[in-house]
Amino acid sequence: MPDPALLETFPPPVDTPFLIEHVNEEFTSVCPKTGHPDFGRITLRYEPSPTGGCVELKSLKLYYQSFRDEGIFYEAVTNRVRDDLVEKLAPRWLQVITQWRGRGGIRSRIIADAGSVPAAWTRG
Amino acid sequence: MPDPALLETFPPPVDTPFLIEHVNEEFTSVCPKTGHPDFGRITLRYEPSPTGGCVELKSLKLYYQSFRDEGIFYEAVTNRVRDDLVEKLAPRWLQVITQWRGRGGIRSRIIADAGSVPAAWTRG
Amino acid sequence: MPDPALLETFPPPVDTPFLIEHVNEEFTSVCPKTGHPDFGRITLRYEPSPTGGCVELKSLKLYYQSFRDEGIFYEAVTNRVRDDLVEKLAPRWLQVITQWRGRGGIRSRIIADAGSVPAAWTRG
Amino acid sequence: MPDPALLETFPPPVDTPFLIEHVNEEFTSVCPKTGHPDFGRITLRYEPSPTGGCVELKSLKLYYQSFRDEGIFYEAVTNRVRDDLVEKLAPRWLQVITQWRGRGGIRSRIIADAGSVPAAWTRG
Amino acid sequence: MPDPALLETFPPPVDTPFLIEHVNEEFTSVCPKTGHPDFGRITLRYEPSPTGGCVELKSLKLYYQSFRDEGIFYEAVTNRVRDDLVEKLAPRWLQVITQWRGRGGIRSRIIADAGSVPAAWTRG
Amino acid sequence: MPDPALLETFPPPVDTPFLIEHVNEEFTSVCPKTGHPDFGRITLRYEPSPTGGCVELKSLKLYYQSFRDEGIFYEAVTNRVRDDLVEKLAPRWLQVITQWRGRGGIRSRIIADAGSVPAAWTRG
Amino acid sequence: MPDPALLETFPPPVDTPFLIEHVNEEFTSVCPKTGHPDFGRITLRYEPSPTGGCVELKSLKLYYQSFRDEGIFYEAVTNRVRDDLVEKLAPRWLQVITQWRGRGGIRSRIIADAGSVPAAWTRG
Amino acid sequence: MPDPALLETFPPPVDTPFLIEHVNEEFTSVCPKTGHPDFGRITLRYEPSPTGGCVELKSLKLYYQSFRDEGIFYEAVTNRVRDDLVEKLAPRWLQVITQWRGRGGIRSRIIADAGSVPAAWTRG
Amino acid sequence: MPDPALLETFPPPVDTPFLIEHVNEEFTSVCPKTGHPDFGRITLRYEPSPTGGCVELKSLKLYYQSFRDEGIFYEAVTNRVRDDLVEKLAPRWLQVITQWRGRGGIRSRIIADAGSVPAAWTRG
Amino acid sequence: MPDPALLETFPPPVDTPFLIEHVNEEFTSVCPKTGHPDFGRITLRYEPSPTGGCVELKSLKLYYQSFRDEGIFYEAVTNRVRDDLVEKLAPRWLQVITQWRGRGGIRSRIIADAGSVPAAWTRG
Repeated sequence: MPDPALLETFPPPVDTPFLIEHVNEEFTSVCPKTGHPDFGRITLRYEPSPTGGCVELKSLKLYYQSFRDEGIFYEAVTNRVRDDLVEKLAPRWLQVITQWRGRGGIRSRIIADAGSVPAAWTRG
Repeated sequence: MPDPALLETFPPPVDTPFLIEHVNEEFTSVCPKTGHPDFGRITLRYEPSPTGGCVELKSLKLYYQSFRDEGIFYEAVTNRVRDDLVEKLAPRWLQVITQWRGRGGIRSRIIADAGSVPAAWTRG
Repeated sequence: MPDPALLETFPPPVDTPFLIEHVNEEFTSVCPKTGHPDFGRITLRYEPSPTGGCVELKSLKLYYQSFRDEGIFYEAVTNRVRDDLVEKLAPRWLQVITQWRGRGGIRSRIIADAGSVPAAWTRG
Repeated sequence: MPDPALLETFPPPVDTPFLIEHVNEEFTSVCPKTGHPDFGRITLRYEPSPTGGCVELKSLKLYYQSFRDEGIFYEAVTNRVRDDLVEKLAPRWLQVITQWRGRGGIRSRIIADAGSVPAAWTRG
Repeated sequence: MPDPALLETFPPPVDTPFLIEHVNEEFTSVCPKTGHPDFGRITLRYEPSPTGGCVELKSLKLYYQSFRDEGIFYEAVTNRVRDDLVEKLAPRWLQVITQWRGRGGIRSRIIADAGSVPAAWTRG
Repeated sequence: MPDPALLETFPPPVDTPFLIEHVNEEFTSVCPKTGHPDFGRITLRYEPSPTGGCVELKSLKLYYQSFRDEGIFYEAVTNRVRDDLVEKLAPRWLQVITQWRGRGGIRSRIIADAGSVPAAWTRG
Repeated sequence: MPDPALLETFPPPVDTPFLIEHVNEEFTSVCPKTGHPDFGRITLRYEPSPTGGCVELKSLKLYYQSFRDEGIFYEAVTNRVRDDLVEKLAPRWLQVITQWRGRGGIRSRIIADAGSVPAAWTRG
Repeated sequence: MPDPALLETFPPPVDTPFLIEHVNEEFTSVCPKTGHPDFGRITLRYEPSPTGGCVELKSLKLYYQSFRDEGIFYEAVTNRVRDDLVEKLAPRWLQVITQWRGRGGIRSRIIADAGSVPAAWTRG
Repeated sequence: MPDPALLETFPPPVDTPFLIEHVNEEFTSVCPKTGHPDFGRITLRYEPSPTGGCVELKSLKLYYQSFRDEGIFYEAVTNRVRDDLVEKLAPRWLQVITQWRGRGGIRSRIIADAGSVPAAWTRG
Repeated sequence: MPDPALLETFPPPVDTPFLIEHVNEEFTSVCPKTGHPDFGRITLRYEPSPTGGCVELKSLKLYYQSFRDEGIFYEAVTNRVRDDLVEKLAPRWLQVITQWRGRGGIRSRIIADAGSVPAAWTRG
């Protein structure tokens, strides 16, 4: 079951703005309708704020793994990860993109933003 | 025959804006002039509105399949899909892109927008 | 000899703006200086206007083929195609891009616009 | 020795703005420090002005070949080619990009502009 | 140990603005937590100022090599390289991007800017 | 309904052995179990015999199109096309390969040979 | 828990030899040492025998999914799948290839054969 | 009209066996059935014999250009080029491969050999 | 310093022959001549024997890391790894391939075999 | 002028057979007919013999650079490099492949062998 308590943070090494991106090709959850597993890539992109945190990589991996047995739709996964991470990191802005390998010949992508994401990242 | 009644929707999981994209590599219809089949990729991209809906994936697939025996030009397919989906989903904005494998050495792409599509998506 | 009379049109299926793109990988003309054939890709991109037309695909192919024996420079081909199509289609805007396989180790690209081409297409 | 006198021009076929790009994958000069040859790709991009000229392709090739034995740094090559071409062509704007295969595990790119280069070309 | 004293510079060949980019695919440092080596690509991009300097390529390589035995996080490497280079080069603007091969199935990218980086480079 | 009567042939231009290959990216039939369309690429490869025939391209296309509404499994399509073509062409040898876009996350390939296919073609 | 009882078969449509290949990009099991999930691609390749069977696609998918919670090494997965399928299908020959996304910077591939696999498939 | 008299040769620089390959991406002829131009790539591969010749590159180009207005089928082009070159070069062995961009959604490849072509080249 | 004592093994799960391949993109050692680091990919491929062992992945990674500060030539690295692994694993056969990013514009590959490596793996 | 005296060698680190490959993307010489520079990739592949030598990388680079001003045909370069290296290295076998960027729309490849090159390398 998705568990945001797994997420750990550390303070940004500098106060000046900079961008962090983590891409995980190994995300899996379960389709709540069919019970079949879904597979995809999940991208996290954010700019830490001086008073917020940076996510620790191993904890991020464990957090993602906590979705493994969860029955949850594409749209809900993306927004839930966004919300959990915003709460933990309190970033200047943050973006979560999920890209799904597809079912029935259709592949999908969901993009959820928080805060003022720069225009260059609009396409995910 | 194209049948928008096949489309089913569900309410967006959150009220905040986010983007949904579905890409189908297996679209086929029939050229009304020659009677030969056309093949292409169709991309749907939209931002759901809190009072509108998200399209259910299997129903989208069936809707696309309903074009299989339809004699219809590239330009008309694209605009018709755009219109059908706008009516069903009432999205903040929506974009339909068709990319055709080509006939006579020419391959084609058609892009139809609805609502205020962000500049980043102008190129489809 | 290039013959714009070959071009046929049909009325746009809708009055709302949408984009049409046709890519032909099989364009050939002749270098007026050396007499050797040139080979390239030609891309046509435009937004039809409600009172203008859409170019019929087979007629576009025949029009392109009419350059096969013409001795004409890269720059002149591109601008001539642009002018012929603008006159026939009366589009909101139109763009012609030619990309040439190269001679003497140099490959070339020419981009000619008509009307108010959106910024997203500046790079062709 | 680099010789701009090799460059020949011809008048643009039309007065309206259009873009010309020539890419040469076979540029070579010599590192003035080590004496070893450098290899790279050089891209020229410009918009001719009605009162200026278009560069003739074979003359451009010979001009590039005149750098073959020249000991000259990446940064200097790029700016020198820019200056020579601006003087010959008097374009609306012009851009020269060199991309070098690399030395010591580092590959490089230099971009030099002249005049008001459109934003879409900022990245070269 | 990272040693900015290794960096050497030379004056820009021209006063007019131009862009310089150096990409090194062979960056390695050590994870301070696990002691395992990290591997990645580091990109430096900047516009020299007339009163500042251009970085000499071999010295840049040696400076990067000085991180080989350093235990340091992704985020800290990127910001430290940024700071060291800004101090040495006094550029109009400068950007450092690190892309890491990944640990635990997650690959990462960090982007740190200095000065007024043009919008076209926002995505690194 | 699959109709081998659509296939037309012409005599090989020479009696010496040579190879012919035709690849069609636009094959579609229907899954007899689910009723959903299947999509794939079909490759025909053969060496004509002096007393047999070469398949005429347009007739091959029409023959493939005759599977459009047929409910038939991957394995059966491949063997049926093999049998129909062997009967029509009487080739030295012949090979049919189908590659399917996949269903339920699994993509498939079927290879059926006739006669003495050279070892180099074992992998299709 | 891996369950070969999930596998269903159907008789080959013809008695003559032909090849069947199914590629699944969505295989996952669990590392018995670390408890972390492993991800990979699994390829099944075989030639059915007239008295054996062809594997039904949906049942193959369910069989693969039954490894989802199993703690099992790369080498054991590959040989187990080989053994289960050989028992069910009684093929002329069969090959199972697993390709793993990698752990600790090392990606792996395991190939297990049964029967007389043609030389062309030695590399998997 | 195809003109083998255009072909010029020079003696091989050594008597020991070696391989020569020339690939031309710019071949064009005319379909004798429809009158539409065909486009493709033509590959020549051969091992010169000490008493035969090597084909001079510019003459090969002119010979290929002599097919530009010829109405001729794929199969006939390939065998004719094979025959013309074998007569001129008297090689140890020779292979001609044509790859055609395709018509009606089907792309084609023809391979014609002369003499004892090594097994490694069977696939063209 | 290269330390084969780091290598750990486990018994093969089956006695029948099968192939194991591990690819590491993160190999680094030091050039004994210049003192500059070398970077490359190292591939291990082998067939375990029933009385020998399989290499444990984490131990292989640590063994590779033990070359990090070693001054050693490409050819020596490859043969040394081959010898160390043959001694530890006692495989049916084994192959080590190193691919180096290159120095002075030349990239290199070294292949060292032990035992009777199947012909299909001759190219590494 | 091509100077084999530049080539230096060192004894193979082991007596057992192994393969060495060096690829240089930066080869250039001059066409003796037109005086224009030729550019290409040159690959050296060989198996050292216990009584022969391995070529030292920097000396190989200098040897290749000695062709920079030489007017010499593709076929002659390849055979000359083969002969020079065979004399210096006395290998079990050796192969030289040159791949040329092309002139007049035709790109070329020349392969020259010495000794008993394994079948797997026939295609270069």
